[in-house]
Amino acid sequence: MTPLLDFIDSHSPRFRDELFSFLRIPSVSARSEHDADVVQAAEWLRDQMERCGLEATIHPTEGHPVVLGEYRKAGIGARTILVYGHYDVQPAEPLDLWDSPPFEPTLRDGKIFARGSVDDKGQLYLHLKALEAYLAVHGSLPVNVIVLAEGEEEVGSEHLAPFVEAHAERLACDGVVISDSAMFAPGLPSILSSLRGLAYFQIDVDGPATDLHSGSYGGAVVNPAMALARILATFHDAEGRVAIPGFYDAVRAWETAVREQMRSLPFDEGAFRHETGASALGGEVGYTTLERIWTRPTCEVNGLLSGYTGEGAKTVLPAKAMAKVSCRLVPDQDPDTVEQLIKAHVAAVQPAGVTVTVTALHGGRPWRGELAGPLFEAGSAALERAFGRAPVIVGEGGSIPVVHDFARVLGAPVLLMGFGLPGENAHAPNEWMSDANYIGGIKAAALLWEELGRR
Amino acid sequence: MTPLLDFIDSHSPRFRDELFSFLRIPSVSARSEHDADVVQAAEWLRDQMERCGLEATIHPTEGHPVVLGEYRKAGIGARTILVYGHYDVQPAEPLDLWDSPPFEPTLRDGKIFARGSVDDKGQLYLHLKALEAYLAVHGSLPVNVIVLAEGEEEVGSEHLAPFVEAHAERLACDGVVISDSAMFAPGLPSILSSLRGLAYFQIDVDGPATDLHSGSYGGAVVNPAMALARILATFHDAEGRVAIPGFYDAVRAWETAVREQMRSLPFDEGAFRHETGASALGGEVGYTTLERIWTRPTCEVNGLLSGYTGEGAKTVLPAKAMAKVSCRLVPDQDPDTVEQLIKAHVAAVQPAGVTVTVTALHGGRPWRGELAGPLFEAGSAALERAFGRAPVIVGEGGSIPVVHDFARVLGAPVLLMGFGLPGENAHAPNEWMSDANYIGGIKAAALLWEELGRR
Repeated sequence: MTPLLDFIDSHSPRFRDELFSFLRIPSVSARSEHDADVVQAAEWLRDQMERCGLEATIHPTEGHPVVLGEYRKAGIGARTILVYGHYDVQPAEPLDLWDSPPFEPTLRDGKIFARGSVDDKGQLYLHLKALEAYLAVHGSLPVNVIVLAEGEEEVGSEHLAPFVEAHAERLACDGVVISDSAMFAPGLPSILSSLRGLAYFQIDVDGPATDLHSGSYGGAVVNPAMALARILATFHDAEGRVAIPGFYDAVRAWETAVREQMRSLPFDEGAFRHETGASALGGEVGYTTLERIWTRPTCEVNGLLSGYTGEGAKTVLPAKAMAKVSCRLVPDQDPDTVEQLIKAHVAAVQPAGVTVTVTALHGGRPWRGELAGPLFEAGSAALERAFGRAPVIVGEGGSIPVVHDFARVLGAPVLLMGFGLPGENAHAPNEWMSDANYIGGIKAAALLWEELGRR
Repeated sequence: MTPLLDFIDSHSPRFRDELFSFLRIPSVSARSEHDADVVQAAEWLRDQMERCGLEATIHPTEGHPVVLGEYRKAGIGARTILVYGHYDVQPAEPLDLWDSPPFEPTLRDGKIFARGSVDDKGQLYLHLKALEAYLAVHGSLPVNVIVLAEGEEEVGSEHLAPFVEAHAERLACDGVVISDSAMFAPGLPSILSSLRGLAYFQIDVDGPATDLHSGSYGGAVVNPAMALARILATFHDAEGRVAIPGFYDAVRAWETAVREQMRSLPFDEGAFRHETGASALGGEVGYTTLERIWTRPTCEVNGLLSGYTGEGAKTVLPAKAMAKVSCRLVPDQDPDTVEQLIKAHVAAVQPAGVTVTVTALHGGRPWRGELAGPLFEAGSAALERAFGRAPVIVGEGGSIPVVHDFARVLGAPVLLMGFGLPGENAHAPNEWMSDANYIGGIKAAALLWEELGRR
């Protein structure tokens, strides 16, 4: 043990009590009746930041305020690291499904039950406690630190990107640390290093001017719904690969070591299948379920609509057919290029007799953290020291918009070092955070500063 | 000219006046406020039948009555022919689109404008006038004749099949004549000799238990909407043929001469395309538009529904997808066999990871009249004599349920000899019947008895 870890262990009851105080504030950002609670949480957080040795300020936005805590004493020559978290929480309803009240934190079976425990108050506050411990033991930090806590993550972070853009100079940094995700399994520290992007389209197929009688016209007029089905069927080959020419051109391969590590994760395929309710899993050949979700792009139908969809039989030849189609993207695909590829492909396969229009509705870039560099290496070392084993690299099939905002505006690498666990009920009744991960997270966050100081 | 045709020409003003009286009765079967009018039309018709020399009776049903007119004097050894028509009409609304009141028949530009003029009062009444003329000139008919007029054709003929079944012995006959269709073009007498059947299905594809987040699951869970599209795309080959194995096994080929005659019909492909509003026509290779509609079976998508179909983008991986699919059938396909073929095909092509259910919703057999035999030959000769050229064989892509009912219950050949014309506005405002076709129809119908007497 080291003095730093000793300090954390010996102060852990107080660290837990303070988190409980934070969790008692019902800072539900989605409900205006909780606006005062959100402000109270921001002020409580500012006070705690100051007690840890940060200069803390509250910044109003058009929505809920941003709280900044800054440590600048490492000086101009030192690195600056920004720690991001959020102090707002999801609504607690339905209340009757909670085994203990959502805003009365309760420790049971090693789990801290409360709304916001893991998402994200516990994971934000552990960074403050790590900073307090580090400063208490060492007297100073080897890097400058900015803690940015927002109060609108659960309602879409509408004002965060404008805030970051407006304060880009003040927030300039060499790396961003976010703890708002989960470890793959208990005891398995994890770095979330990739997010998929999105390219979302609507495909409209227009045929006859109105729905026609399928007896009087069927066979001589191209059926828009069948044309749509035939177009969609060209989007994949028989082995589950996307068959849109050029679709994979920009896809960056994963390091063999990371792929092997992903394949060795303790993933229960049967439990995952059971969770979906599907009779079998399926996807692109040559990849495991986790690789399919984390590392491979997709092309999905999100919706279909054409003709008669009510009860029974109506013999119409539909005038039109519509599909919502979206591609999950991986580095270095980009939504604009995928839009061009889809449009060119659809134009090439569409039959005569119908007019096909592809409209881009929404796009977002994929993200992948560099698995190298001082921040990644320091994070890996800190996690290994705190949890007794090297972290695994995990991915996420969806996206976390703030990651893109930070990467885009600040141009800094982002380290996603999360301490949640599977089954933690974020956004659901009986949300919990592992008490061991809360204390382990404080240690990892504190050791991060130590490891960064060495690099 | 013959005495028979002379009689018809010399009495045509009265024949027209009588039809106008019939057309003035607003026998709208769909509207209960017209129930008395429907009864009045039935009684008027009975009286007219008696004046022509038929024994006429009104038969109540649970809906509107059936009127029977019978001529049995040809005796037991002679043939019996049943003439079917209907005395009810469609509602006339929207009234403001009529150039003259719907129940005040008006002769303009050689057209008799009135609701029910061509559908079907004019085409029914011309048979009564033909019988009157034939009996007036010749004193007796060479065949026994039953005229069956129903009052529910425009509301689905619900009570007709039960009536025919209940009176099968009385209605036993050697042939059925129906005039409730159109000639292909002015001056071109036509025999409608085929109707397509129907086999209507719903295809349900079930995947995950609920809609899933397309980021968290997409790529590893089989997408039911994409699976459905891929299944539907196997229903045709690249040349527009139905690719369901065995689908064409029962399809009877058309006589080369009839095919050639269909190809020589004065059909305006551009006008037909314009009428549909489609940018181009399309279908099975090797067949013309008319052949595709009249003589070839189809497999159409009538409806599609899956996932999110509202405005904008929602990233769901749908739990399920549904298609309504129907096949138009031609002789000798039958709906039950097609159901088995579709189910076997879908079972063969469906992917793992989804459950696909094919449910038969509705079926109807195709029909094709024999282009031979005394009734067909007599009808052809009568039409040729009345209109100065041999009739053409035309088809119909939809179905006319009463044809199947007569063919099934009475087991007699059916001759569809229609005197409407394209653009006649049946079911629409400004319905009309060609005055020349009304008189020509009386002649053809009268000559039919003469021609039948020779065979």
